Amino acid sequence: MAKELDRQRVRMLVSDVMASYAKEKFILPHEQCPLPDRDVIIDLSKKLRQLLFPGYFNRNACRGEIMEYHIGELSVNIHEVLTEQLVFALSLQAHLENEGKNLCKSTDINKKASDISYRFLEKIPEIRAYLSSDVEAAYLGDPAASGKDEIIFSYPGILAISIHRLAHELHLLKVPLIPRILSEYAHSVSGIDIHPGAVIGKHFFIDHGTGVVIGETTIIGNNVKIYQGVTLGALSTRGGQALSGVKRHPTIEDNVTIYSGSSILGGETIIGKGSIIGSNAFITKSVEPGTKVSIKIPELVYKGNSTKEKE
Amino acid sequence: MAKELDRQRVRMLVSDVMASYAKEKFILPHEQCPLPDRDVIIDLSKKLRQLLFPGYFNRNACRGEIMEYHIGELSVNIHEVLTEQLVFALSLQAHLENEGKNLCKSTDINKKASDISYRFLEKIPEIRAYLSSDVEAAYLGDPAASGKDEIIFSYPGILAISIHRLAHELHLLKVPLIPRILSEYAHSVSGIDIHPGAVIGKHFFIDHGTGVVIGETTIIGNNVKIYQGVTLGALSTRGGQALSGVKRHPTIEDNVTIYSGSSILGGETIIGKGSIIGSNAFITKSVEPGTKVSIKIPELVYKGNSTKEKE
Amino acid sequence: MAKELDRQRVRMLVSDVMASYAKEKFILPHEQCPLPDRDVIIDLSKKLRQLLFPGYFNRNACRGEIMEYHIGELSVNIHEVLTEQLVFALSLQAHLENEGKNLCKSTDINKKASDISYRFLEKIPEIRAYLSSDVEAAYLGDPAASGKDEIIFSYPGILAISIHRLAHELHLLKVPLIPRILSEYAHSVSGIDIHPGAVIGKHFFIDHGTGVVIGETTIIGNNVKIYQGVTLGALSTRGGQALSGVKRHPTIEDNVTIYSGSSILGGETIIGKGSIIGSNAFITKSVEPGTKVSIKIPELVYKGNSTKEKE
Repeated sequence: MAKELDRQRVRMLVSDVMASYAKEKFILPHEQCPLPDRDVIIDLSKKLRQLLFPGYFNRNACRGEIMEYHIGELSVNIHEVLTEQLVFALSLQAHLENEGKNLCKSTDINKKASDISYRFLEKIPEIRAYLSSDVEAAYLGDPAASGKDEIIFSYPGILAISIHRLAHELHLLKVPLIPRILSEYAHSVSGIDIHPGAVIGKHFFIDHGTGVVIGETTIIGNNVKIYQGVTLGALSTRGGQALSGVKRHPTIEDNVTIYSGSSILGGETIIGKGSIIGSNAFITKSVEPGTKVSIKIPELVYKGNSTKEKE
Repeated sequence: MAKELDRQRVRMLVSDVMASYAKEKFILPHEQCPLPDRDVIIDLSKKLRQLLFPGYFNRNACRGEIMEYHIGELSVNIHEVLTEQLVFALSLQAHLENEGKNLCKSTDINKKASDISYRFLEKIPEIRAYLSSDVEAAYLGDPAASGKDEIIFSYPGILAISIHRLAHELHLLKVPLIPRILSEYAHSVSGIDIHPGAVIGKHFFIDHGTGVVIGETTIIGNNVKIYQGVTLGALSTRGGQALSGVKRHPTIEDNVTIYSGSSILGGETIIGKGSIIGSNAFITKSVEPGTKVSIKIPELVYKGNSTKEKE
Repeated sequence: MAKELDRQRVRMLVSDVMASYAKEKFILPHEQCPLPDRDVIIDLSKKLRQLLFPGYFNRNACRGEIMEYHIGELSVNIHEVLTEQLVFALSLQAHLENEGKNLCKSTDINKKASDISYRFLEKIPEIRAYLSSDVEAAYLGDPAASGKDEIIFSYPGILAISIHRLAHELHLLKVPLIPRILSEYAHSVSGIDIHPGAVIGKHFFIDHGTGVVIGETTIIGNNVKIYQGVTLGALSTRGGQALSGVKRHPTIEDNVTIYSGSSILGGETIIGKGSIIGSNAFITKSVEPGTKVSIKIPELVYKGNSTKEKE
């Protein structure tokens, strides 16, 4: 079908596309060393999930007697793959900061990448301690949860916080590009959008989760529970790049619950310890500790006999 | 690159991870028989979709003269794969209920799994009758739908209800873990979060769908239409596990339409037949049949000449 | 495990499923030529992304000296695969319009498909010009963006608008089925639901994005910025198929910003140039150019000492 090419048309097409590559300045082709590979990074997040939750996402890990060998092999593999992606990300960064000098063969970058990769993996036990508390929070907080296995296997909130805790460590290690690729992968899969920069305490639970947004400079304490559609955001981003690095997102103290659809905005907004924020609140000022905030529910207007109008 | 391992560092890392495995009690490794495999279960949902909508998701099924052989082979394959996953899920359940006795070779469990698998597959014709009515509802209800093929191929609402109707049958057969893995897969792909326990009548249509939440004990009648961002939820889940099994979510009677962003909460809340719920309503009490409910639209404040402030 | 089949039960099952295939009229099996293949079309969207953003999603393209060969090969491959899918889609359309006459071997359809496929690919340079402006808009508009690479790699808004701009061209070429399969794939991955019919100007940025809905007959000018949870929708779809083709969705003029959670509804609603729509507004009437619209923030009710009530 359509086997014969219209050579003239193909040649024209390729030449027009090539001309476009030379022209559109925000999407110029990269010509230096390879960029990080999004697919490889997503695959890496799956291997990391095997390391975090042994037995759940790979069968081999559930045999106690060979577990140590399995974990050894998995860790070495993750280190190798991550190191390579770090080399690409760091080389690109060096390239951008050094006016185009191609640095991707640099021994320094290789060494730095390998070291970051180790330091990241050395955080796994600490990340697991946090995730154990998160799974407990989900179990205690959700009457529909049948047990911890169901939570680990299927809760989008657990997937999102697992990947966030990994991405956040890479963010702290000042890794470019890779943390955001991880967090946007989690966003895509879970509907929960957590910037890698957000600082989140133990025993954190997001229920349902679709539509949650947690901005870059958000700080969340321990034992916080959040429902679907909650935004922890900026008051205004009209400053654009001039606001880069400024604390624009709120601070949520320990033991706070925020019900669905609420927005809490602004870098100086603090929700005090133990507060409960009802559904659909729009908050741009700090709330004292121990406060229960709700909105006056929008008045409902009832009209009878709608059936007549129904198709 | 980074070919030589730092053996000392790897050894330390593995030993720290192993220590973490022994410690974090909510994410201990499983050491008994294999757990259900999430990837296999998701793949199974794709085969089931081929069985439900022949020709749409596999080419072979569209040749009438060989259809019966194709369906025979597909059914036998689904039965085998599902039976194996059921054995894993039921063994885990038995293990948890029997203080750790490893039961995964038990003949009883194999037989029970095979029988559940048959009983599930025997529901396919009934599920198809419901899904046919759902596709009809989408076609009649959406002016943007060009035809039933477009709906079956691409509507997230149809994907979500297809997988829900499968997961719900497994839920009725008291299968652990697998129904929720299926429903959270659908949630991930469609943004629509329906707990496998929800009871949903014929001719059901969810338009757009992102952010919809339908809780475990929701009951929905026939001919109901729901828009994006609608929550059919619980009033409060602060009771946690103590509320397990209690009716916490609303009942929606026949011919009800619920517009985008509305929340209907509480196990005793009933939305009567033929009612129409406008956008962004927040309802915690029952509504009489035939009622049109809307909110007073939040008053808009207009200021001219915003262009001056615009960057 | 469960190796022996219960032949009687399998035979019954297959016969019941076959009976269901003959019965449920909205999900009858297709028996004519193959339907378009959703997986192939999604894979095609990934190849198109390689063509749009060379180097980001495939390593080969980043070597300048072989780029032209790479692009030539990629273009020819896309043309071939797309042409085949177009043949399936156009044949099905012809079949539906011609009372079942099987037209899938028709030379006319093959020629038409190949031509549409070329005309589509010839739009790539123009699409790239738009996408370059979209990436610029994201960079200027988001203080959390570290650079254009991060945006291209990971922003869901860029994925959604990239696929929309492709799907919209196919929509303009009157291609059935394929545009909507593409746009619902983007919806699934990004949480952003843009109908292929929507007309969207340059320099368009959707931040966060989950829950955004942009309806079929929406018209959006240049330099518009939209946040998560915004609906550009219809006032009512109770007319169903009778409303097909009618302008039901709003017009958004140049330089408008619409903050999170707002709904703008109706085919006659025009948001004038340079207006700013605050969060959670519900707008069904036109807004003059240069207007800043906000809602009276729902009054908050504070109660102290909620800690006592906290579990």
